[in-house]
Amino acid sequence: MIKGNMLIGQSGGPTAVINASLVGAIKEGINNPNIEKVYGAINGVAGVLSEVFYDFTTESEENLELLKITPGAALGSVRYYLPDFTSLASASYDYERLLEVFKKYNIRYFYYIGGNDSMDTCNKISRYLELVNYEAYVIGIPKTIDNDLPITDHTPGYGSAIKYVATTMSQINLDTSSYKEGRVTIVEIMGRDAGWLAAGAKLASINNSAPDLIYLPECAFDVDKFLVDVEKIYKEKRKVLVAVGEGIKTKDGEYLLKYRHFKSADSFGHLQLGGVAQVLCEIVGQTLHLPVRSIELNLPQRCASTLLSKTDVEEAFEVGRHAVIFSTAGITDKMVIMKRVNNKIVYDVTDLSNVAKLIKTVPSEFINEEQNNITDKFLDYAMPLIKGEIIVPFENGLPKVYRVKK
Amino acid sequence: MIKGNMLIGQSGGPTAVINASLVGAIKEGINNPNIEKVYGAINGVAGVLSEVFYDFTTESEENLELLKITPGAALGSVRYYLPDFTSLASASYDYERLLEVFKKYNIRYFYYIGGNDSMDTCNKISRYLELVNYEAYVIGIPKTIDNDLPITDHTPGYGSAIKYVATTMSQINLDTSSYKEGRVTIVEIMGRDAGWLAAGAKLASINNSAPDLIYLPECAFDVDKFLVDVEKIYKEKRKVLVAVGEGIKTKDGEYLLKYRHFKSADSFGHLQLGGVAQVLCEIVGQTLHLPVRSIELNLPQRCASTLLSKTDVEEAFEVGRHAVIFSTAGITDKMVIMKRVNNKIVYDVTDLSNVAKLIKTVPSEFINEEQNNITDKFLDYAMPLIKGEIIVPFENGLPKVYRVKK
Repeated sequence: MIKGNMLIGQSGGPTAVINASLVGAIKEGINNPNIEKVYGAINGVAGVLSEVFYDFTTESEENLELLKITPGAALGSVRYYLPDFTSLASASYDYERLLEVFKKYNIRYFYYIGGNDSMDTCNKISRYLELVNYEAYVIGIPKTIDNDLPITDHTPGYGSAIKYVATTMSQINLDTSSYKEGRVTIVEIMGRDAGWLAAGAKLASINNSAPDLIYLPECAFDVDKFLVDVEKIYKEKRKVLVAVGEGIKTKDGEYLLKYRHFKSADSFGHLQLGGVAQVLCEIVGQTLHLPVRSIELNLPQRCASTLLSKTDVEEAFEVGRHAVIFSTAGITDKMVIMKRVNNKIVYDVTDLSNVAKLIKTVPSEFINEEQNNITDKFLDYAMPLIKGEIIVPFENGLPKVYRVKK
Repeated sequence: MIKGNMLIGQSGGPTAVINASLVGAIKEGINNPNIEKVYGAINGVAGVLSEVFYDFTTESEENLELLKITPGAALGSVRYYLPDFTSLASASYDYERLLEVFKKYNIRYFYYIGGNDSMDTCNKISRYLELVNYEAYVIGIPKTIDNDLPITDHTPGYGSAIKYVATTMSQINLDTSSYKEGRVTIVEIMGRDAGWLAAGAKLASINNSAPDLIYLPECAFDVDKFLVDVEKIYKEKRKVLVAVGEGIKTKDGEYLLKYRHFKSADSFGHLQLGGVAQVLCEIVGQTLHLPVRSIELNLPQRCASTLLSKTDVEEAFEVGRHAVIFSTAGITDKMVIMKRVNNKIVYDVTDLSNVAKLIKTVPSEFINEEQNNITDKFLDYAMPLIKGEIIVPFENGLPKVYRVKK
């Protein structure tokens, strides 16, 4: 294999374990005989084009271990995507510039940690470098709390996110059970196009705290049916706990967030103020006249480094490490995937083009017939992903973190 | 001392350590020679009046240890407060009924875990029992995440709540720092009348993640000054992190939540949909045209049992235990308090009437001159309260909890 330097970048929304994948790749890069310098690109492709690198080659073990459990994209992320091209002539200047930088720094191994859009970028870089006959090995490292990448059994970041969702759901359930005469509590969970995260709320059944109702963007949301369900459960239990994916849509495919025609147009004149849980709150309050509260789980879903899944951290690390292993074995233009074989995870690759810009939604076997809850079959799938805890180091009462100097 | 049974209840909003105080009192009750049966009242005063008790006398050590770190009011809480009276003749039937129940179960030691309203209830019960010459010892056990009870140095529940606030703030800071071109992120923290919890965001300075701006309900909120501050910081850093207490008010004493006259009345026609962070988001978006996001920390502030302060748990336990110790030494009509003596906590009592219905706000020495941040002096006060972590037991990926059968 060709000897040279490696460059790694992060892209898209961060996860709680995005840096575990980074550290997995860095550690393998430091030890790998084909790799000399281990560079990180600050702010993804933007950092590549502007030559803003951080050199990890001599980074201490202590810093890397802390980095592994630090939330946020340590290298800085970016939402910049390279334009498409069909031939060398149609490739934008960005590609020329990228090649220039790769040559200058002798980058022969390139890794990009990201979701489906980032895999598309990765694929374009790979195709361009091949077109110009520059020998380089390009591998995508999957990450997304949304778990919506195809081919791979699941994505690094998802396990910790649903561990957070299920634990928080359980804690909210215990809190709201304090009163005999309770409320309707509506918890909004991330996931615009796929309901993987909202489905994770079902895991709270492990300690008997699962929500009464769970709604995913995969199913057409029927407001009338929802109100019937809520009223029925409230009558019986004097409280209702609802989990809802932020991207639920009506049967006409309209986001409920834009659902302005309930009761009166006027009453939903300012929906940009709130999320879908608040819309449902308003509907429940106005129609059923029940006490109601909305909770948006928001960013902590992807950055709660104090509630990591050990399995997820280890897998994220391995996915990063395997990217380097695969590439230095001559594999390129691929994304690392996880396969579940006899309940163990095996690391493999798939073509970047199989993943780029595609979305995997929650299959119907994980959704109950009434489309207001999740089946036990999902538990079989998801329980292994939240297994184990990481005891993060604290100092003066707060978690220790490591920041890469940008 | 008189021998008899003890009864303990929980009232008001739960905290993450409300059950640690319960367990502290139960354990001391089980061991105390003056106490025979250890009863818990289900749903506070309501359970007393309707004789719905749970008998903890033979509860296992294992259950109690788990109960100690289970969030939510394990006995069930209540928002029922006893009516006032000036003489025996003016006391409502509730008091007669309570005396009847106390006699029937030979309750000689009564404890009520709650905030200032609950201390008022406790005080009334104590005064009534004295009026009718029924020998009983009544002690209030403070709890509130709001830290707004007078006399005591701080309240059980506050330490864990600000550990959660500061840790989450730090994690949000790392997450939102992922992008070079960031946003204005406005984080809403509980506290309607006092800003103790919002001040806790300052603790994120321990790992250099404190918000840029912190606003408390104690200071008149000036929208124009706020916009100037936000714009200045954004220009410099390309991102701004703001912490805001939910109860901030304008100089006219109006909750900002009701602030509908900015730009146009119409544009704030439906503020019930959101919290104060959303109001500020709308203002920042409309005026400064900056990308902006609101995050409401919501219920997890008081129920995140996976992020407890060890100091808080131990103090909550001790406050409960001391209630029983003090009462069986003949003390009654008091609330347990914590005093800070040479940086150690000493347990003492104060008259219930000193506490009932009073509120302690954040002193001006903890607020900076510009009234948009918190001073380092606050850190000296608050850092000891978040010290230490509790490793909670997990099972199948989720925290184990113990539920009292109601």
